[in-house]
Amino acid sequence: MKPYLKVYPVGKIKRTDENTVIEIFDEYKDALLGLDEFSHIIVIYWFHKNDVPEKRNQLQVIPRHNPDNPLTGVFACRSPVRPNLIGMSVCKIISIKENIINIDSIDAFDDSMVLDLKPFFPNDKIKNVKVPEWAK
Amino acid sequence: MKPYLKVYPVGKIKRTDENTVIEIFDEYKDALLGLDEFSHIIVIYWFHKNDVPEKRNQLQVIPRHNPDNPLTGVFACRSPVRPNLIGMSVCKIISIKENIINIDSIDAFDDSMVLDLKPFFPNDKIKNVKVPEWAK
Repeated sequence: MKPYLKVYPVGKIKRTDENTVIEIFDEYKDALLGLDEFSHIIVIYWFHKNDVPEKRNQLQVIPRHNPDNPLTGVFACRSPVRPNLIGMSVCKIISIKENIINIDSIDAFDDSMVLDLKPFFPNDKIKNVKVPEWAK
Repeated sequence: MKPYLKVYPVGKIKRTDENTVIEIFDEYKDALLGLDEFSHIIVIYWFHKNDVPEKRNQLQVIPRHNPDNPLTGVFACRSPVRPNLIGMSVCKIISIKENIINIDSIDAFDDSMVLDLKPFFPNDKIKNVKVPEWAK
């Protein structure tokens, strides 16, 4: 069996028609101290609907399901199909109350498991960014 | 026992005095197709030296080991101590040859396991970013 690392969900994403929240499990609530001083967070979550071997073994996709785009490795796009089903979104914090973070929106399904949160810093130092035509 | 997700290392970081490379394991090489058209990548890796319960249970730290900084939750800083030991760095690609990506530098130890790579897009749409005093 291949060696693996153990990742424990620390919360989940709840989406309704009205709002989108990150619910951090009670045992991890203390890890939120000071997050309210940031305007944006990086949410790292799990594409749980794709957690089957055939999706985790697919290494190339057509990005954004657009047939005009070239076949691309999953490490060169943001496909939800990838060996480790790690998703990443930058979200605007609307409010934080206890263990509930109200965010503007997120490109993740309801009930997605949250693996980690990181504060967002502006990437001012990253210059001369180049991306391929399909990603523009 | 707590439920967990299985994350498989897809490569590792190798640092020498001369250079820093990401070595993607052969079985995942095809996932790199098209990555050479990007200038920067987001590297998601594992703080393997902290993979012990006491480090994964520590939820608050003094950021950057600076005693002037306030006690802060690990979800509100980039501490390598956190429930899931997920690190994230934006790196400049120098070259890609087969399964070896030469990068400018990374804030990770030699032999850190790589979990995922994502292409970096400029965060042009993220406006009015606010961070606390200690993070400036």
